[in-house]
Amino acid sequence: MIDLLVLGTGAMVPLPHRWLSSFLIRVDSSLILFDCGEGTQIPWRQYHWGFKRLDAICLTHHHADHVAGLPGLFHTVANAGRTEPMHIYGPPGTADIVTGLRVIAPRLPYDMIVHELDDGAVVDLPGGITARVARGEHGVPVLGYRIERPRRRAFDRDRAISLGIPVEQWSALQRGKAITHDGQEIGPDAVAGPPRKGVSFGFVTDTRPTANLHDLVAGVDLLICEGTYGGDDDGEKARAWGHMTFPEAATLARDADAGALWLTHFGAGMAKPDDFAGNARRIFPHTTICHSGLTGQLTFSDGYRESPDRVESGSVSGDR
Amino acid sequence: MIDLLVLGTGAMVPLPHRWLSSFLIRVDSSLILFDCGEGTQIPWRQYHWGFKRLDAICLTHHHADHVAGLPGLFHTVANAGRTEPMHIYGPPGTADIVTGLRVIAPRLPYDMIVHELDDGAVVDLPGGITARVARGEHGVPVLGYRIERPRRRAFDRDRAISLGIPVEQWSALQRGKAITHDGQEIGPDAVAGPPRKGVSFGFVTDTRPTANLHDLVAGVDLLICEGTYGGDDDGEKARAWGHMTFPEAATLARDADAGALWLTHFGAGMAKPDDFAGNARRIFPHTTICHSGLTGQLTFSDGYRESPDRVESGSVSGDR
Repeated sequence: MIDLLVLGTGAMVPLPHRWLSSFLIRVDSSLILFDCGEGTQIPWRQYHWGFKRLDAICLTHHHADHVAGLPGLFHTVANAGRTEPMHIYGPPGTADIVTGLRVIAPRLPYDMIVHELDDGAVVDLPGGITARVARGEHGVPVLGYRIERPRRRAFDRDRAISLGIPVEQWSALQRGKAITHDGQEIGPDAVAGPPRKGVSFGFVTDTRPTANLHDLVAGVDLLICEGTYGGDDDGEKARAWGHMTFPEAATLARDADAGALWLTHFGAGMAKPDDFAGNARRIFPHTTICHSGLTGQLTFSDGYRESPDRVESGSVSGDR
Repeated sequence: MIDLLVLGTGAMVPLPHRWLSSFLIRVDSSLILFDCGEGTQIPWRQYHWGFKRLDAICLTHHHADHVAGLPGLFHTVANAGRTEPMHIYGPPGTADIVTGLRVIAPRLPYDMIVHELDDGAVVDLPGGITARVARGEHGVPVLGYRIERPRRRAFDRDRAISLGIPVEQWSALQRGKAITHDGQEIGPDAVAGPPRKGVSFGFVTDTRPTANLHDLVAGVDLLICEGTYGGDDDGEKARAWGHMTFPEAATLARDADAGALWLTHFGAGMAKPDDFAGNARRIFPHTTICHSGLTGQLTFSDGYRESPDRVESGSVSGDR
């Protein structure tokens, strides 16, 4: 399972009633943050997910509205008592950005390990998940992320019986351990069912909808995608500034066969993103307009990728 | 006149209902900001003072909660259309801090001129005001500020008449220009009345109440001062961390003969600073507990430093 929490949905500047675009996931007890604009730690504190277990931060790019909150967050995580290393992922140049911003956070009680990723890289993130990245198109290096959590193969009870393995040895196998039976070592794979689909989501922001990104997010359960402009009228601006309109994001979700779409990163000129929801839903019906405090879950299920309970969304109090 | 606007009142971390400590002044059409923690631009936007005319930023010190909002603000001021140079004042090391943070604001449409100040420095700020600084005591270099706006000497009508200057030449003299009368040059000083008191305020935060700072703020119309802790119970913490309690700040205001005291920079553990107001007012009655959106004015008046209309305070809507 992966828990999802939208922290902010804004673009370019933090507004009195809209935090900058970023979101947080929880996998087991690990927290991983995606982008960190100025103020990101403020709604985060409001939603009580804690700061200490922030194991990793994934950055899409280095524009200030996606990274300016880092030094303040570094302090807040330190104050929460973290001593384990923190991993930072981002496009080439991330180490210099982190070094520059750490001029006001030079001493921290935890190590910081920066990983610069480029198109096609696949890395293991904390929490047993993997990230694949692809370059987008935004004028500066930008990465889209595809996050996957694999699902362990089920225990094949019938196979265990047919091999004559005593019931008291099943739990070790179920926990992935090998056992010895009749003098023979039996590994967990011997009693595992067929491979099972895990859960996955894509995070794509500050980019045009490229073929490269389409391939990256093909078949994800959930696509979290920017929609800086609400409608086709702003198509020219979207192309000029390396962003997407709601219809473009919805088309990407549809063509990539995503299970659901969360739209975020709303331009400051769009006062009420909900008013433009129809522009996305006529292309891709399973679209949610994000707001700070929106939560969801990606849960394992057997092959029903379109299952409506895959993404359970709801708001929390204090939403702004 | 000097207009005052409190943007935030928090210490250490920006909280969901308390912005970090900073405030803004307006002198004629110039804006000058004092400190800039993460999120400072957000309430600022709410109060509609504009960003373009931000001519100067005065920093007390370089802890993240007082400077992390700079790079985002630099972009916002750029987006507001500024092209004139911006001046940044702060203790030694300010240039390195600004350079580090500008890793995410490398190209701006205005020049940035950094002035590093040390104990006793006096500088002219934009808007025709002067700043005098003094070192505080906080573990790292910290500056207290004393801001003064001088008042022009009045036009001495009787003197102008006795010198035989025709009425049609008075306005030039009143505007500070020299005239020629009867073949003789007459400067504005020749028809100026006695020197008049201007207005002044002190800004003192993140420091113990030192003798040095007492001398700096002696006789100011308004002292804006930190009160990180509400009462004497936290006196030991205040001493250990280089801060002040409400009673200590009130004592500084009283002993320095300030006209009024605004308390700000409340520790995150102090949920309701108003509850501790009595701890300050029993020492210095004219104490205001600041909140984001608090405004005030320092207006010229002839010699009545204690006049209650010197500081007119009120709240604006949207206060948080």
